[in-house]
Amino acid sequence: MQIALIQDRMIPLNDLDPVYLDRGLYFGDGVYEVLRSYNGRLFALDEHLQRFANSLAAIGIEGVNLDQVRAKVVGAFHASGLSNAKIYFHITRGCGPRDLFTKARLEPTFFLTVMELGDSSLEKTKGIAVSTFPDLRWRRCDIKSLNLLPNVLARRDAMQKGCDEAILVNDSGLITEGAASSFFGVFERSAGPGGRREYYAQTAPLTANILSSVTRLFVIQAAQDLGIPVVEQAFAPEQAKAAKELIMAVTTKDIVPIVRFEDQLIGDGRPGPVTGRLAKEFKKFTV
Amino acid sequence: MQIALIQDRMIPLNDLDPVYLDRGLYFGDGVYEVLRSYNGRLFALDEHLQRFANSLAAIGIEGVNLDQVRAKVVGAFHASGLSNAKIYFHITRGCGPRDLFTKARLEPTFFLTVMELGDSSLEKTKGIAVSTFPDLRWRRCDIKSLNLLPNVLARRDAMQKGCDEAILVNDSGLITEGAASSFFGVFERSAGPGGRREYYAQTAPLTANILSSVTRLFVIQAAQDLGIPVVEQAFAPEQAKAAKELIMAVTTKDIVPIVRFEDQLIGDGRPGPVTGRLAKEFKKFTV
Repeated sequence: MQIALIQDRMIPLNDLDPVYLDRGLYFGDGVYEVLRSYNGRLFALDEHLQRFANSLAAIGIEGVNLDQVRAKVVGAFHASGLSNAKIYFHITRGCGPRDLFTKARLEPTFFLTVMELGDSSLEKTKGIAVSTFPDLRWRRCDIKSLNLLPNVLARRDAMQKGCDEAILVNDSGLITEGAASSFFGVFERSAGPGGRREYYAQTAPLTANILSSVTRLFVIQAAQDLGIPVVEQAFAPEQAKAAKELIMAVTTKDIVPIVRFEDQLIGDGRPGPVTGRLAKEFKKFTV
Repeated sequence: MQIALIQDRMIPLNDLDPVYLDRGLYFGDGVYEVLRSYNGRLFALDEHLQRFANSLAAIGIEGVNLDQVRAKVVGAFHASGLSNAKIYFHITRGCGPRDLFTKARLEPTFFLTVMELGDSSLEKTKGIAVSTFPDLRWRRCDIKSLNLLPNVLARRDAMQKGCDEAILVNDSGLITEGAASSFFGVFERSAGPGGRREYYAQTAPLTANILSSVTRLFVIQAAQDLGIPVVEQAFAPEQAKAAKELIMAVTTKDIVPIVRFEDQLIGDGRPGPVTGRLAKEFKKFTV
């Protein structure tokens, strides 16, 4: 008789709940999104749904009705009654025998949670510390997939070092992004003939095998609205240490100042003025 | 109220079965093994358990008693009463809130299935066809983890091309291994002063970011027992096409002849004599 064992519990395989046969569990064969609301309003739902559609297409999960996904997100959010919510959802290729791939038509699995958003005000006020970790990830980080073990290992390393986020460094010695965030440096340069100094923001380009982060796009927009140039070009940890300011950008917390990069205090170890201006500008998008 | 949605079913988050909070599902944060039995006897259990221990250590899942894992594998196998069984098991870091990493002590999740092994006699007699696919995987393929989406995409591509397995080609243009198998070429060379020709087997070295395949090791052992030299050095698809024979090695089917590599028939398009000798020698390990 074919059997299954869950922890210590032995059951006939035929009695196994299909959830244990989910390709999301066996292979990480699925894609996900995380979005949030601000004061009762979902933020950037269109952008998240568009990226979700891109991820689904990239791994060839077919037959998903994006309008239904949107309706589920909106419906669950409203049903929750939460004002500041974190919404996670994923779709996997479905449940079935553990074959690496099958031509059999599977029904994709949809899963979603609506949770109360954690408070990030302290991180925003005090700033956070980051460490570096090798970027071990696969070559398609543009796909927001359930294969996140390298990200887990990076974050684990950061936490063991007393840091809040891991900044990933690729084989060329350049920073790509955070384990679960985008990464910006604020630098100063002379602009124009008068020798005037100006601040600019720098972040790795989408061609650097990073996620097309929605928050990253809004940070870039905020910078442009403020007349702060944005340079999309990867830079090295040594350059990051010499930055005027460093910024982590992530859906659930939007703009978070980084005040320590490995052992190096950034600026005077407190959130800097450009980060503050960007955060204020970002807030305009969310009301 | 925090809520969850499973397909179309909305429930309070607190009522959610913990299986939906498994880090294996959210992140692929776990490692697995597949082993088999031959005629009522488990094959290479020690080797699989050792690799499992290595995988667990590599991703820092602690507190797993390997003797208990062994007892579960053996117990479930005997309980199944199956003679030729495929045993799959994984351990994930546990269930909990979806944080990339947490210092909270989680209880690892153990999951195992014992299934009847599929019949591979046709593949062994006729041989299989393979295609190539870029090796998109992460940099720690020595870890047998649940992050298998690149493997899924490779196999999917192969099946769409009417092939049975995808052979992965890295950025240097060299073959690493199959999407879920090891890969060997059989070549001929002149050996010694008399101009005598000899066959040798070639496969990528463990340093080429491949899995330390148990079957691969036994194939190497079989070759050595037969006096067939084994060269552990990666080679390119063009070289594979010019091979005398090609072999796929995988736990569930051990040695499978490859008779077509992309559009190129290998040898005369039928399983070759060296593959046959290796298969016969391999069989000695399994009785």
